[in-house]
Amino acid sequence: MSAEPSVVRPRVGVWLIGARGSVATTAVAGCAAVTAGLHPPTGMVTETPDFADCGLPPLSALVFGGHDVVDCPLPKRAEALAAGGVLPPGLPSAVHAELAAADREIRIGGPLPGDTRDEDDLVESLASDLRDFVGRHGLARAVVVNVASTEPVPTGSALPASSLYAAAALRAGCPYVNFTPSAGLHHPSLATAAGSSGLPYAGRDGKTGQTLLRSVLGPMFAQRALAVRAWSGTNLLGGGDGAALADPAAAAAKNAGKERVLADTLGTVPEGEVHIDDVPALGDWKTAWDHIAFDGFLGTRMVLQTTWQGCDSALAAPLVLDLVRLVARAHEAGLSGPLGELGFYFKDPVGNGPAALGEQYARLLGLAERLRRPGGRDGVPEVRR
Amino acid sequence: MSAEPSVVRPRVGVWLIGARGSVATTAVAGCAAVTAGLHPPTGMVTETPDFADCGLPPLSALVFGGHDVVDCPLPKRAEALAAGGVLPPGLPSAVHAELAAADREIRIGGPLPGDTRDEDDLVESLASDLRDFVGRHGLARAVVVNVASTEPVPTGSALPASSLYAAAALRAGCPYVNFTPSAGLHHPSLATAAGSSGLPYAGRDGKTGQTLLRSVLGPMFAQRALAVRAWSGTNLLGGGDGAALADPAAAAAKNAGKERVLADTLGTVPEGEVHIDDVPALGDWKTAWDHIAFDGFLGTRMVLQTTWQGCDSALAAPLVLDLVRLVARAHEAGLSGPLGELGFYFKDPVGNGPAALGEQYARLLGLAERLRRPGGRDGVPEVRR
Amino acid sequence: MSAEPSVVRPRVGVWLIGARGSVATTAVAGCAAVTAGLHPPTGMVTETPDFADCGLPPLSALVFGGHDVVDCPLPKRAEALAAGGVLPPGLPSAVHAELAAADREIRIGGPLPGDTRDEDDLVESLASDLRDFVGRHGLARAVVVNVASTEPVPTGSALPASSLYAAAALRAGCPYVNFTPSAGLHHPSLATAAGSSGLPYAGRDGKTGQTLLRSVLGPMFAQRALAVRAWSGTNLLGGGDGAALADPAAAAAKNAGKERVLADTLGTVPEGEVHIDDVPALGDWKTAWDHIAFDGFLGTRMVLQTTWQGCDSALAAPLVLDLVRLVARAHEAGLSGPLGELGFYFKDPVGNGPAALGEQYARLLGLAERLRRPGGRDGVPEVRR
Amino acid sequence: MSAEPSVVRPRVGVWLIGARGSVATTAVAGCAAVTAGLHPPTGMVTETPDFADCGLPPLSALVFGGHDVVDCPLPKRAEALAAGGVLPPGLPSAVHAELAAADREIRIGGPLPGDTRDEDDLVESLASDLRDFVGRHGLARAVVVNVASTEPVPTGSALPASSLYAAAALRAGCPYVNFTPSAGLHHPSLATAAGSSGLPYAGRDGKTGQTLLRSVLGPMFAQRALAVRAWSGTNLLGGGDGAALADPAAAAAKNAGKERVLADTLGTVPEGEVHIDDVPALGDWKTAWDHIAFDGFLGTRMVLQTTWQGCDSALAAPLVLDLVRLVARAHEAGLSGPLGELGFYFKDPVGNGPAALGEQYARLLGLAERLRRPGGRDGVPEVRR
Repeated sequence: MSAEPSVVRPRVGVWLIGARGSVATTAVAGCAAVTAGLHPPTGMVTETPDFADCGLPPLSALVFGGHDVVDCPLPKRAEALAAGGVLPPGLPSAVHAELAAADREIRIGGPLPGDTRDEDDLVESLASDLRDFVGRHGLARAVVVNVASTEPVPTGSALPASSLYAAAALRAGCPYVNFTPSAGLHHPSLATAAGSSGLPYAGRDGKTGQTLLRSVLGPMFAQRALAVRAWSGTNLLGGGDGAALADPAAAAAKNAGKERVLADTLGTVPEGEVHIDDVPALGDWKTAWDHIAFDGFLGTRMVLQTTWQGCDSALAAPLVLDLVRLVARAHEAGLSGPLGELGFYFKDPVGNGPAALGEQYARLLGLAERLRRPGGRDGVPEVRR
Repeated sequence: MSAEPSVVRPRVGVWLIGARGSVATTAVAGCAAVTAGLHPPTGMVTETPDFADCGLPPLSALVFGGHDVVDCPLPKRAEALAAGGVLPPGLPSAVHAELAAADREIRIGGPLPGDTRDEDDLVESLASDLRDFVGRHGLARAVVVNVASTEPVPTGSALPASSLYAAAALRAGCPYVNFTPSAGLHHPSLATAAGSSGLPYAGRDGKTGQTLLRSVLGPMFAQRALAVRAWSGTNLLGGGDGAALADPAAAAAKNAGKERVLADTLGTVPEGEVHIDDVPALGDWKTAWDHIAFDGFLGTRMVLQTTWQGCDSALAAPLVLDLVRLVARAHEAGLSGPLGELGFYFKDPVGNGPAALGEQYARLLGLAERLRRPGGRDGVPEVRR
Repeated sequence: MSAEPSVVRPRVGVWLIGARGSVATTAVAGCAAVTAGLHPPTGMVTETPDFADCGLPPLSALVFGGHDVVDCPLPKRAEALAAGGVLPPGLPSAVHAELAAADREIRIGGPLPGDTRDEDDLVESLASDLRDFVGRHGLARAVVVNVASTEPVPTGSALPASSLYAAAALRAGCPYVNFTPSAGLHHPSLATAAGSSGLPYAGRDGKTGQTLLRSVLGPMFAQRALAVRAWSGTNLLGGGDGAALADPAAAAAKNAGKERVLADTLGTVPEGEVHIDDVPALGDWKTAWDHIAFDGFLGTRMVLQTTWQGCDSALAAPLVLDLVRLVARAHEAGLSGPLGELGFYFKDPVGNGPAALGEQYARLLGLAERLRRPGGRDGVPEVRR
Repeated sequence: MSAEPSVVRPRVGVWLIGARGSVATTAVAGCAAVTAGLHPPTGMVTETPDFADCGLPPLSALVFGGHDVVDCPLPKRAEALAAGGVLPPGLPSAVHAELAAADREIRIGGPLPGDTRDEDDLVESLASDLRDFVGRHGLARAVVVNVASTEPVPTGSALPASSLYAAAALRAGCPYVNFTPSAGLHHPSLATAAGSSGLPYAGRDGKTGQTLLRSVLGPMFAQRALAVRAWSGTNLLGGGDGAALADPAAAAAKNAGKERVLADTLGTVPEGEVHIDDVPALGDWKTAWDHIAFDGFLGTRMVLQTTWQGCDSALAAPLVLDLVRLVARAHEAGLSGPLGELGFYFKDPVGNGPAALGEQYARLLGLAERLRRPGGRDGVPEVRR
């Protein structure tokens, strides 16, 4: 938004794992739409005034590519999303060129059924795709973002697919963001490589609905000394995510993040379960109902209920763009390791930050301040170009 | 909780305007119940660890009295509240002595129908009741708290009743808290007296339900750059408050506070109305429904709904006890003027503090810190005893 | 759907008062879409098997026209509805021809601002439009349906606009349906003419959301002998209807119908209010929240809440098509006067029928039976052709 | 209500399986409270005018006893229910005598842990308790009602406990009502005995909340030709029932009944799951949330949500009293076999009746009519005394 005309900002790559999914498609289409002035940047925190002059790459500097194992072209996927009300009617044709360009940069990921390559070969192959992408476009850097369907919690010693992609990001020297509850860079066998890579990374599991609410309601109850007795929730969602999370093992990964927010903000884990139902009729729309039974003064029983009806892709996509910009800038500024200041975006953040949204927001503003004064005494080191 | 056995803490008066109402009755009964260990101090923020060692008067040091124009004795009122589920069954008899003691300290307020006294006579009469109370019990100080039914917005030049009581507090040298949206000390003709009194004061309109929620949800939408299009609300409540607020003029006073929270946290006033319905069948129980229509990325329409079912008296009473303790301690510590650090408790706070609950809580903790180190460099002056 | 190929069914006119509004546009577009097989007839009761062989005019036999005082062409109005999600994207262009044809049959209604014609002239002018329409298309008959914005409750002696249109229907010999709470044919000064016209008529105020729900929930509470203490409701809606009903006088007309359902099904009028808020951000989408406080055994307090999120035009349009077909057939079969058997469709039905939806449905099936056996002993007289 | 003073109505036994549970305790206490005029008979359908003069046994003629395997005395259980808000405070002491009298008639049921009796011995022992009860009090008859916790769906060939009790009822010549989803008299191995017993019976699984709602909402959607796409539900409840139904096998039995209502009223089984969560903090209070996604005209997506907050015992107890009176009278009038006319009360009714509540109510009124004219041509045979 604010790049001076005389300076050519280097272009930044966005490499999406799950590049043909709803979130990825919405991110690509939305970036193009906002860049073209077709829509305001609603939902993008990095477009608010507090983030001006932080040196973030402009949306127009982002170049999209990624891995996926399905082959539905992005323009066609965008049409399907528009038919389901996720994208505005007319948008897919308005940004057809950008969708087609991103589609050309999508490579088949892995492991594929019957794949005989060993883990190292696979990682090398994926990393090679990344290096090619960076080289082909002369990118300053590329940020890898996992927006693929949630995996089951891994049980054996084999690296799950999400961790293979994360290993490839490390090998190719790319910062990494895990927007899902899958293992990704969190896998124990990647800990050493992540630590020595000198790369910044962030995650995990984007906080877009029920958990976002919980991260403001939990602190409210705690600050008011009200005793939460039971916190129950039901999520209804269709789309691929609904089907993936109908698998109890995948849901377990997701629910761990949801419960962490309550435990951290309430200081205790209340009674109550969380259900995730696959309801194909709802498509990409998600409804989350929460029922919170709490005690007031003298044990008086009270109840708060919330119903959140949102479109998951539309909630996630602007956060993905935010994260790419922030992590790319952090990389440019020489930051490395877990970016705890990005806990604002995640259910289960890396690092040891606060769990209340307000405090997370304050830390995010602190990061913005650091990125704004890269040479300052308390800031990040001078940017190396 | 924390008074050392060797130090006799001076007793502190709590003078309640509307002393026979639901909130007052619950505060008196609840203070006794918590002091006796019958119930934990749920809902009392000043009983959380952050407020230990701040020199707050212990609950056992509070002595209750007040003004009212009805004559139903407190023990009988408490029985009615227990029948309605507001107080636990059995509590009224368990704390009968304390209720009866407080009841003996209640004086008829004014102006009464056909009252021929002029304003100054009335104020003097009310102030005299206060001075008698303080003297009779040898109190270190007494805090006046308005918990009477909401008045209509005053139109003429005559002081409304709530302001007569506030003027009496000033005249008797008592700190003042306005827990209602009535004018109280906010009346323009009291501004000079309030400023020169050297007394601390706080208000107005306790934040107990719908507005409490709005003070955490509004910041959430703002921090996430989501565009709130319309915020609509309906409140159903019985009890005296329901009837009082069915008067559009009284509701107007209340709604101004509710809207201020949205305007301050969202930076804009969205579409939508707020209704307050008198539903006698609900008694002291309040149900607040909020419907928030917001836009996400690319203009996607989303909705959050909340339903809050609470007991107003049980929500308000612990906050009243908190405020009495904090304001009494602030007075002891020599603070004067509007206590903006207490914005956490109010819909429409005095002073220029933040509107987001999390930031208000941080300021409240700051006040606790100041009260803890009264002689410190940045703290309040040494306490004069 | 079921007309035998060898019989040419006569064409039937549908004359819509408010012919360029959302409901009318959706009815015209939807009739064309269902006729063309683009969509199933969801929401049309007359397309269920119970109504086969009743001699109803097929959808393909309906010819649309009407009065309105705005001049936005129907195809353009349909595009606006599609942009707001009321019509499916693509539908306006798919049925452009039918929309344009109907648009050519729309005449300016009245009275217009500054209109100097007296009531009789106005009625004659409107009736003349109707006769021209019937003659121009060689229609067997035309049914007049009021789907215009709700009028305020009339206060003076002058006929409100809705009653002028109703008088014109009588004068032109057309059956009449009042889908709104406006006076229409209910005006006292039209009673004699309605009674002697020999025409069937139906109304008033289509039951599409909150009241539909109430007409099944009210009987449930009554049949279970549960004591409803308070029934409160809030409606949020945008579009023209929201603005019209923000006028308290217009809302009063609407709310009378809503309350009648409760009074008739519960046998008593519970506490509680109904609000209708104009929320332009919601467009044609309506959200209705109901809160029902009821007592169970031994006075136990319980609560039911409902939230209905619907698109008013999509709910109303299929009922309008149902009513046109049923009333046209009733006219053909020689029925006259108030059609109480159509109470299923209305908040405030003509005649003395039941208020519970299930019983109304049974009566509707009874009408279907009568229409199926026109010469039967208990049925309607032989159809005159 | 209506027994003529000159006629001594014979007394009727109520033998409750689960006689010390919440439902049983509420039924006993409530029957006494209503008989004594302490409370109106809210929730008792048989006390409405349509059931006068049907010869139902008056409440004052009911004598309570039953089986249970726990030994908490009824008066103490009632105190616990009052503390939890299920019974009014003060009621347990007001009806202490009746509670104590019923408690004296409770016998230990079986099979107990380590029980070595075979099935026939057990049944004989239970039947013997029943015969003793009838003889000791000189009862005209006794109705056995199963209100025990839900059993898992039986898998092996052994009779589950609920069926042992049902077999005992048959052997003792007592009509039987299954208010739970447990097998009871539905067990295949009891089919012959039930058929040849000449006894009337009813069941199963009382319809008290979510399914009650579904039985009026399902027909509404069907009658309006709206296409239900997905119907999802979550139940939160504490008390013993919550814990019992947290067992997936027990929940399966319950959910089958819930789904049957949708299948029967919609004509199709929509997408969606039903969850039953054990939330001990809620005690006997149950919250049921339903989310219904449906399509309107032209495929427009709409949503209805309902939240039901009720006290299960207070909802069930008056129905239990209704059923006892109706089944006792049916037995007196010589009716036998499955009483399909009582489908109004059940999730999964015996016989082949309708599933819509309104139609079920009409059939119930039909039964009342039959019972009113026992000698009539279409009625039940003359009563044998």
